Formats: sequence, structure tokens, C-alpha cells
Amino acid sequence: MSPNNQFKDFSEDSIIKFLQQKFSSSTAKALVGIGDDTAVIKTGKSYLLLTKDLLIENTHFIFKVHPPYLLGRKCLNVNLSDIAAMGGKPNYCLIGLGLSNKVDWAWLQEFFAGVESATREFGLELVGGDLSRSSTVMISVTIVGKSKYPVLRSGAKPGDLIYVSGHLGEAAWGLKLLKKGYSLGKNKEIDYFIHRFLDPSPNLKLGQQLVRQNFISAMIDLSDGLSTDLRRLCQVSHCGAELWVDQLPSSPLVRKFTSRPRDLTLHGGEDYHLLFTVPASREAVFTRWQKKNKYQLFCCGRIIEKNEIYLVWPTGRREVLRPRGFRHFA
Amino acid sequence: MSPNNQFKDFSEDSIIKFLQQKFSSSTAKALVGIGDDTAVIKTGKSYLLLTKDLLIENTHFIFKVHPPYLLGRKCLNVNLSDIAAMGGKPNYCLIGLGLSNKVDWAWLQEFFAGVESATREFGLELVGGDLSRSSTVMISVTIVGKSKYPVLRSGAKPGDLIYVSGHLGEAAWGLKLLKKGYSLGKNKEIDYFIHRFLDPSPNLKLGQQLVRQNFISAMIDLSDGLSTDLRRLCQVSHCGAELWVDQLPSSPLVRKFTSRPRDLTLHGGEDYHLLFTVPASREAVFTRWQKKNKYQLFCCGRIIEKNEIYLVWPTGRREVLRPRGFRHFA
Repeated sequence: MSPNNQFKDFSEDSIIKFLQQKFSSSTAKALVGIGDDTAVIKTGKSYLLLTKDLLIENTHFIFKVHPPYLLGRKCLNVNLSDIAAMGGKPNYCLIGLGLSNKVDWAWLQEFFAGVESATREFGLELVGGDLSRSSTVMISVTIVGKSKYPVLRSGAKPGDLIYVSGHLGEAAWGLKLLKKGYSLGKNKEIDYFIHRFLDPSPNLKLGQQLVRQNFISAMIDLSDGLSTDLRRLCQVSHCGAELWVDQLPSSPLVRKFTSRPRDLTLHGGEDYHLLFTVPASREAVFTRWQKKNKYQLFCCGRIIEKNEIYLVWPTGRREVLRPRGFRHFA
Repeated sequence: MSPNNQFKDFSEDSIIKFLQQKFSSSTAKALVGIGDDTAVIKTGKSYLLLTKDLLIENTHFIFKVHPPYLLGRKCLNVNLSDIAAMGGKPNYCLIGLGLSNKVDWAWLQEFFAGVESATREFGLELVGGDLSRSSTVMISVTIVGKSKYPVLRSGAKPGDLIYVSGHLGEAAWGLKLLKKGYSLGKNKEIDYFIHRFLDPSPNLKLGQQLVRQNFISAMIDLSDGLSTDLRRLCQVSHCGAELWVDQLPSSPLVRKFTSRPRDLTLHGGEDYHLLFTVPASREAVFTRWQKKNKYQLFCCGRIIEKNEIYLVWPTGRREVLRPRGFRHFA
């Protein structure tokens, strides 16, 4: 909810770099560890997936604004989105809850009704956690999942096509409306956007299908905005990208309300769609599969060798795209 | 750090009961789930252990008082103690960190130096986590471990002997000294107690050996005090216990300083010793093993059928022991 990941004398990136160096080890068993949203560990014939996300009051949510039922869903669903981005299947979750004295029994019941709706919807089991007092509400969720063939962020190659699994900018527009003082239950159109922010949905089935069909080379979920998350994928894949301005998956609904939808498309966070790359050699079979299925998938760019991200206009004009995503220091 | 687990219109126990009912399922795969400190899940020939503990500023620690190096160790070690209580082996950990603007780079480096010392000492790998801004510092640790034969809290039977793996009350005395304004580095004796509170150690090796030798029927770690944790073990084992007053493992060091050491022995928390039960049939072989090894193990009572916990004096006098442990609503 804060666009700033700078923090006293350090940034999130500098902490992660420091930790990667400090905890790197030649005997490490994790295939993917610090710096990714999901840790990947080989166990027997399969891979164990571990993900942990914090939701902290006034950083990630506003207590009065976020209905507890939707907060219960969201704290699981943002973690499930990390599992989706690996093409994984979620199995178990743990919830740590720091409760302030604003929390009453009705709030707790609603919160856990939301948790239950997500565990049922996505077939995972709540197996434990921790409860504590806290001056503000904080939620820590850990999800344990598995995957036979996890897809990493690091597999993109020059020439691969870039896809996004839905329209972008809707959640960011919802957040904007909330900040302007709009609330749920008064107008259908406004409710739609606010819901996109308060109640995002993880693309678990799509992630699993893409991986099973062996269509893709790299994947990440769009939590912090296209410009930020595409850069993350490119950094670990040691490549760059071009995004085609006329193919960007701007939300037609957002376009109705704002004269600058492209900013929301490029930098708006919390849409939780998947961004993935398809090697040119898989393009034909992927396109045939896509036509048979009902997913909204948008091809909007291409991976390039040079370590830079460009916006490319139909006229051929190119412009470097700086990350300016939605970053809640997380 | 707060002795109170009552919270507006609910208690920790009432939340746990509510969650156990809400999330109970005939298809549950967890052998042990909500309500225990560690979830136990059968996976192939072994069991997956999952534990999550929160450490929240002003609830579990005071920012100015707890040196970040020791806090980094403690946030892992209290979780490792839960793994120890299952006789398990820890493998991976995730750390979620909410950072307030009191945190600077020096604090972070010290904190993670402490984390590293614990991961090295106990052979586990930091594989991920989450960073976020927060109004107060909060730490959420998840540890993933395994065990071939996990020992549960629920296996105690009438006649089993009760053992504790060390002297009790030292950590609580350390906390008392901190609250009185004492600090580290001025007096060796005071440092000893304060360290017992700020830097507890998990009994992983002992837990593993007890389980491997098949000596014990039930185990729990003493995080919240003997009167509270023994009651927890008895509740899930559907039994009671008698504690022999003249055999209680009061700390001789604490006894030097206070006229009422028994209160600290019975109700003082955070010692993180193991409490376990040995069936009468294993007593002889266990005693022989114990003599060969150097662990300080104290036999201080017996499991009984009646659902009550008694203090028993050498004269035969019996008194019901009410739980009054160290409870930080956690």
C-alpha cells in the first residue's frame, strides 16, 4: 500500500542481496531460495514448495476498510498466487495472527470464514499456526505445496514471447477508489474494482496446466506491477524484454474511467495475474491449446538479450521502461 | 511477556477450540494439527513437521532490551524447541520480518548474524521469507523438519513417570531481573539468568535420542511453564498427573536469590526444557541409558488416571495445582 521500498539506510533489495550472500552455501538443498517468493526444494521425485507472505495493518491493509472475510481470503490467496507461479499444487497452510484490541469475536469468525472459503476452494488444509497479542493486526501465512516440474523465474530466453493472464490495472484502480473514500455496496462498477483489490484470486489451475503441457520457460505472479515483476524475471533470467505498447493488456473497464490507463497497466500492483514466457518453438502448439481453452491470455512482448526493458510503439519508437511498481516494501 | 491470555471477548483456548471444530475434516492428512505447536503430516515413510511462532515487539520482546543477535537466535530456537519436542530434525526455515523505523542496518546485520549462528548450530537452511514495513518489529518464523517416529503429546498413560530435562525457573528469573532494570554485562550471575531468558537453547539432540531409543510415551517443550504445559500434555492424553514437591527441579541458582523458588519452578516460562513421560516398562533401560549419558534429567512425578494435576508432599498431603504459567497469549 506504500509505493516506497526505501527504508532508513537500506532498501528491500539491499537486504535480499545481503542475505543471499550471507546464507549462500555449496551444500544448499534449495533449488530456489532467498529472493524468490517461493522456495523450491527437491524431495524424492517431487519438489517441496514453501512460501510465506506477511499482511500487516497499515502496510498491506487498512483494518476499517478491509472486511475480515475478504482479508481471510486474501492472506491465503496472495500466497497461493506464489504457488500458482510455480505451477504447483498447495497442500497445507499455517497462519500466524497478531491481534490488536480492535479485534473482537465477530471479526475473528468472519476472518476464519474467509480463510475456510479459500482452503475449500483451493483444496488445502489449515494445520497450525500461532496466536499472539499485537499493537496492530498482523497476519503471517505459510503455504506448503508441491510440484513435479516447478517452473522458475529464471528460465526465460531471448526470443520467448511474453504473456499475461488477464487485464491489468483493475486492482490498482480499486485501491485508488478506496483511497478516495469510496466503499463497497453502493455502486456495482465501483464494487467490481474494489473487489479486484480486496479479493484477488490465484491462478492455480492455469499455472498447473501451463506447466503440465510444458508450454513455458519462466513464470512469475504479478503482485507488484508489470514493470517491477517483469524486471525481476528478466534479472534472474539474465535477459531483457520489449513490451509492445499496442498489445498491452490494459483493462477496458479502467480505460472508461481514466485518461492514463497505461500507467496503471504498467505499474499497478496486486492484480495477481500470471506473467509467463513461451519459447518460439512451443508457440504454435500453445496457440492451438489456447484457442480450445477459455483463458484470457495476452501476448504483449518478447524477451531480448540486452539487459533492459523497452516499451515499443507500432511506429518503432523505443523507450526504456523504469520499474515504478506498487511496492509495499514487500 | 504478558501473563494474560484473555483478550476482549475471547481467550486463546476459545479460538483454538473454535478453529479445531471449524477446520476438522474426515479427509485431514495431518496427524497433529491445530492446537499443537507442531503440525505432523505423514509423507511416504517419514513425517513432515511444520511449526510457526510469532515474536512480536512488546508482547514477546522489548526492542531496546533484546540485543538483535540474541533475538535472531531466539526466534529460531523457540521454533526449534517445538521440533525437539517431537524428536524431529529441522531442515528448512522461512523468516517473515516486519521492520519499524527504529531498525537500522547495524541492527539487521546483528539480527541475521544471530539467525546464522542458530542455522549453523542446528544444521538448517534459511530458504526464504518476506520483508515488510511495520509500526512495531515483528518476526514470524516457520520451520520445516522431519521425523521417522514423531512423539506426540497425546501418548501419556497412567503409571508413566514424568521427567524434565533441566532446572526450571531460571529464564523467568532472568525476565524478572530485566523488568527490575538490570541489564547484561555488569554482573556474571545476573548475566547468566538474563541469558537464560534472552538466549534459550532447543534440546534437539536429547529429543532425537529419546525418540530413537523408544524410551518415551509423550513429550512437550516447556515454553509456558510446568503447570501450563503439563496440563496441555495431560489434556490431550486424557489423563492427569501428580508432581512430587520434594523432587521438583528447582534451580539451585534461583534458590539463592528468592525465598519462593517453587512458584518460578511451577509457573515460570521460557526455560525450553523438555517434559516427557517414560512408561514403567521402559524405566529400567532408560535409567541405565541415563547413567551413561550426561543429560540432567529429573524424575518429578507420575501420570495418573484422574483428570487433575496434584502437588504431592512427602507427608502425603495433596493439593490441586492450577495452571498459572507464563502466557503471552501465544
